[in-house]
Amino acid sequence: MNVLVINCGSSSLKYQLLDMSNEEVLAKGLAERIGIDGSVLTHEAPGQDKVKFEQPMPSHKDALNILMAALVDPNHGVIKSLDEISAVGHRTVHGGEAFTDSVIIDADVINQLEVVSELAPLHNPANLIGIRACQELLPTVPMVAVFDTAFHQTMPAKAYMYPLPYELYEKYKIRKYGFHGTSHKFVSREAADLMGKKIEDLKLISCHLGNGASLCAVLNGKSVDTSMGLTPLAGLEMGTRCGDIDPAIIPFLANKGYAIDEIDNIMNKKSGVLGVSGVSSDFRDVESAANKGNQRAKLALDIYHYRVITTIGEYVAAMNGVDGIIFTAGLGENSSTSRQAICNGLKFLGIKLDPVANSKRGEATIISDKDSKTTVMVIPTNEELMIARDTLSLVK
Amino acid sequence: MNVLVINCGSSSLKYQLLDMSNEEVLAKGLAERIGIDGSVLTHEAPGQDKVKFEQPMPSHKDALNILMAALVDPNHGVIKSLDEISAVGHRTVHGGEAFTDSVIIDADVINQLEVVSELAPLHNPANLIGIRACQELLPTVPMVAVFDTAFHQTMPAKAYMYPLPYELYEKYKIRKYGFHGTSHKFVSREAADLMGKKIEDLKLISCHLGNGASLCAVLNGKSVDTSMGLTPLAGLEMGTRCGDIDPAIIPFLANKGYAIDEIDNIMNKKSGVLGVSGVSSDFRDVESAANKGNQRAKLALDIYHYRVITTIGEYVAAMNGVDGIIFTAGLGENSSTSRQAICNGLKFLGIKLDPVANSKRGEATIISDKDSKTTVMVIPTNEELMIARDTLSLVK
Repeated sequence: MNVLVINCGSSSLKYQLLDMSNEEVLAKGLAERIGIDGSVLTHEAPGQDKVKFEQPMPSHKDALNILMAALVDPNHGVIKSLDEISAVGHRTVHGGEAFTDSVIIDADVINQLEVVSELAPLHNPANLIGIRACQELLPTVPMVAVFDTAFHQTMPAKAYMYPLPYELYEKYKIRKYGFHGTSHKFVSREAADLMGKKIEDLKLISCHLGNGASLCAVLNGKSVDTSMGLTPLAGLEMGTRCGDIDPAIIPFLANKGYAIDEIDNIMNKKSGVLGVSGVSSDFRDVESAANKGNQRAKLALDIYHYRVITTIGEYVAAMNGVDGIIFTAGLGENSSTSRQAICNGLKFLGIKLDPVANSKRGEATIISDKDSKTTVMVIPTNEELMIARDTLSLVK
Repeated sequence: MNVLVINCGSSSLKYQLLDMSNEEVLAKGLAERIGIDGSVLTHEAPGQDKVKFEQPMPSHKDALNILMAALVDPNHGVIKSLDEISAVGHRTVHGGEAFTDSVIIDADVINQLEVVSELAPLHNPANLIGIRACQELLPTVPMVAVFDTAFHQTMPAKAYMYPLPYELYEKYKIRKYGFHGTSHKFVSREAADLMGKKIEDLKLISCHLGNGASLCAVLNGKSVDTSMGLTPLAGLEMGTRCGDIDPAIIPFLANKGYAIDEIDNIMNKKSGVLGVSGVSSDFRDVESAANKGNQRAKLALDIYHYRVITTIGEYVAAMNGVDGIIFTAGLGENSSTSRQAICNGLKFLGIKLDPVANSKRGEATIISDKDSKTTVMVIPTNEELMIARDTLSLVK
């Protein structure tokens, strides 16, 4: 049974076709600059050369037509006909409070997604475009929406409610939702397997450290707190996002003459490690500058590690203990020095790293020493596989 | 040697006269509605009836004249002449980065305080009015400024820098300053005495839980992190303040048509336990409503306790361990149920409360059991005494 996974942005479309009998990726690709001059779709299948399609794609439907043709192409295709696609899983950013789990898409779901779009005006409309285009091209294939927020719907009210007037929650649904849920769910389950324990018996902290970054407290398999909030701006220092700051800074800047849109843009696009270092939003550039003695680059990394350390402390307290800590996503999977710096701040948890294991790359590994009181792991995340698994289990 | 301690608000003036040979309070009082109709000054001395002066006080100088007359009054006065006041200590809210400790006030200090006023436009100008009025009335008496922020100037950059563009720090000095420093300094030193240890050898977390609330990580006697920020809005849920929220909520509300001043007012005056409960900003009212089954009142308290618990977790991580936790200020000193609720969430620190000790009031006490791995204490705060001690040590 093959599942097509679709991740639609406003001008992009990522996809993977997976054979769920063995969870193998048959083909994957990315369409960029949809609706803009210079559209391009890059398609690849294991063992084959990459194929680039440089042709106008005025809409997401055009990109889908190209990728479907590539999938069934007589020369480099991986399936004989589109009938071999049994289901489509759509990554969907915001499920609000309406969706506590993945769901088979029907007219009701579409309506609810439109209502929720207000909470994610940049992302959900793009997801909806992708869903509708797929429905036109594959009208008889079941489709599933998998939400970034759904995994966090188990948070207790004390964690998701802001200490704002209650009316703002009733009127606008202002609360903490959290994101990266598909990733946190995936790696926490893989971690339980790696530890040889049941997820229901574990207190885990998942650290998704990419260009966007969030932490999640996973108690007995359920999210009980996470660092992103109403939006993906909150929490940690990120590539270009500020994370949590004194909220009074915004009125302070407004009084200095900054327009609210300008402040919003500063917080989302010009802050984080880019804003502090002045070097780059890419951690590799910032690490390299710090190693050459750039003090602001060093400060950007110090803040980053400090916020991960203290947020881990928060979640240890939230769960009244911790059994395992997981590093995942770009920085989490690849920077052994960042993992080392973070674990140096966690000696109160009895953590000891195994330097040899910590230097490995690309596979799920326990990187703590056998004597370590808390298990530390690197788990490569795989949101597409998690989406495909959820899709499969719903359409079965 | 007698020290007069002055705490000036925009329309109020609190004072205490202390005999520093034994740290006894000779007299204290409060002037309210200065510059407004219905000015009143309440003066009291131990063993005497309270005296109320209801008469116009157009300025802080008028209030000072009344209190000084009361201090030397032949009938109920406590000193014979104003010459018996050896020094005046002024509580000063914001010292910016200019003041890392208390300081004897001279013309230079006044100039710097004016520059720093931009960071605390509601508080520092009132403090300056009080200083100038005192200087006019007691021109030969040395005066000392004691800052709410000074104790926190030992924070490392990774704790005080926000992940915003570095230029905002250079241009406007936007960073974390922290407040309640006089209280955190006082109780952390008292706690070391109570534990029979040197403050230089301890990792302490001070929880100042009043209508305004902040936590402070005190490592070897020095503040290394605190929950308030550029302003006293940040951090915990408070009586009417929201503390930390996703900063993107402010642009979200602005897009809904809220003016920035309105949002600022909501965050400072209509949020916190008042906003969530809809009942009151006073914890006693909210506890009472929660006990009667009011769910929003219960939620307000749950959020409050949860944020204290998780912030304690943050600071355990920031210091890589903790030896003692201190509760102080209104709620911290008086609510045994809140202390119990918070400590229930800290079992990972090996904390056990002694229920008998926890039910005591009004004195510095260890409230944890002898088996507890972390010492928990109630220490009544005394900012006036701390100000008088700093004043004395500088003018000596």
